[in-house]
Amino acid sequence: MSFVSDLKAAWQRADSLLCVGLDPDPARFPAHLSWRDDAILEFCTQIVDATAQYACSFKPQIAYFASCAAEQQLQALIAHIHQRHPGIPVILDAKRGDIGSTAEHYAREAFERYRADAVTLSPYMGYDSIEPYLAYPGRGAILLCRTSNAGGSDLQSLTLADGEGPAAERLFERVARLAAGRWNAGGQLGLVVGATFPRELARVRELVADMPLLVPGIGAQGGDIDASVAAGATADGTGMLVNSSRAILYASRGEDFAQAAARVAAETRDALRAAAARKRLG
Amino acid sequence: MSFVSDLKAAWQRADSLLCVGLDPDPARFPAHLSWRDDAILEFCTQIVDATAQYACSFKPQIAYFASCAAEQQLQALIAHIHQRHPGIPVILDAKRGDIGSTAEHYAREAFERYRADAVTLSPYMGYDSIEPYLAYPGRGAILLCRTSNAGGSDLQSLTLADGEGPAAERLFERVARLAAGRWNAGGQLGLVVGATFPRELARVRELVADMPLLVPGIGAQGGDIDASVAAGATADGTGMLVNSSRAILYASRGEDFAQAAARVAAETRDALRAAAARKRLG
Repeated sequence: MSFVSDLKAAWQRADSLLCVGLDPDPARFPAHLSWRDDAILEFCTQIVDATAQYACSFKPQIAYFASCAAEQQLQALIAHIHQRHPGIPVILDAKRGDIGSTAEHYAREAFERYRADAVTLSPYMGYDSIEPYLAYPGRGAILLCRTSNAGGSDLQSLTLADGEGPAAERLFERVARLAAGRWNAGGQLGLVVGATFPRELARVRELVADMPLLVPGIGAQGGDIDASVAAGATADGTGMLVNSSRAILYASRGEDFAQAAARVAAETRDALRAAAARKRLG
Repeated sequence: MSFVSDLKAAWQRADSLLCVGLDPDPARFPAHLSWRDDAILEFCTQIVDATAQYACSFKPQIAYFASCAAEQQLQALIAHIHQRHPGIPVILDAKRGDIGSTAEHYAREAFERYRADAVTLSPYMGYDSIEPYLAYPGRGAILLCRTSNAGGSDLQSLTLADGEGPAAERLFERVARLAAGRWNAGGQLGLVVGATFPRELARVRELVADMPLLVPGIGAQGGDIDASVAAGATADGTGMLVNSSRAILYASRGEDFAQAAARVAAETRDALRAAAARKRLG
């Protein structure tokens, strides 16, 4: 099995494009958890168990664990997901970007220490900053392409003078082209493309065939589910991991936080499912 | 005091452009250390104490600690540097790049948990991925601009269609321009520019006045000290943190590793000092 084949199986099994983002912020936890030493792990495992049936993947964001010195809780959380919810891929959102032996150490961190199925990476340093991750057969590497934030345009939207293709090529299109072409010999790559720019999401989909796209930016960031799925899904209504974090994690600050998370995850899954069905009907 | 003013003071005090990179790889440690639980900390503190007099800064590379679950040793190492060698800035080489609340958590990791004076960042996600670090007054953020690896050209050297300035502008020049301009209101930024491309290093120096440049790529990576300093130093022969890691750390695998490291650090400092003197003479 590999990240991409696990993901395809998960899309089918759950009939869901929802990726549940795990960005645990203790300041927003329910009061009854906050006294615990392992509050981050407890919060996240309850969220995971309550939402797993609605999700095609989980995406822990390592910054939230690192700022709290909670590396052991991250390790335990991913072990929990693999054990209780086998077949649901775990994407470590780390946006690493470095070369040579340093990248080897980051790959070891993501794949051996944390046992993630895939990791997010920055493409700025080029192919040799991606290669050490691809040396792990079956693991995935998801490259930043067109991000959903305002500053995403500062570099990603710049037009290239020596562009490829008939129209003017922008930097994020070059990243998509490289990721779909010679960088992806092993079929291990995916791309991060924000939901806030549906036209650019559609453009990336044109360039990358059925490559998995990790799509942040719905919910709190304002991206629209219907427009995003219409733009980014493959013809069979899959191909996307649409991430939602805060709207699910903090649906309630009461003792019912896990049930509230499950309710929002189910609603989001349903909205994504309906949009995917429309996409399949063309 | 701030990162930039500490760095200027360190350049003067040590008359050195040498940044000692701390990339501890237990597989390359001397045999007499390898049985210790705190081998990483012990190795690094001995290197630090032996080389501090030759260095303007230290740069721990977080990947090497993270792959070994050695976060506590990294914390202890930076505390040791601040305590024993006050005034020598510590740059956490992490190449983070993320937005909003995630970037806030990474900034907290670098500046509060590890107490680094500066952190390396990727510019791919644009200004709002840099801003949360600048909210820490006096701390520095050093952005990837033109890196020393082969793949560095994949994106960084692309020519922009809508370039600024009289000549064709490349992506790394845009990053330099942004970093020297509206991104740098607080004067907290520096740039990473590899030693393997002296012409491009000179071009960045033209664009950024006296901004600090972190220059990897001498030694193991083949960059030339004289050419790098001639290209990258300011008129007064400072402005650069020329990084050397492996050549210093692994100068000997015997019990004399720290003395051997000191010897190589002194030689490198001397070579940099001579090159800086030539630069000052014009």
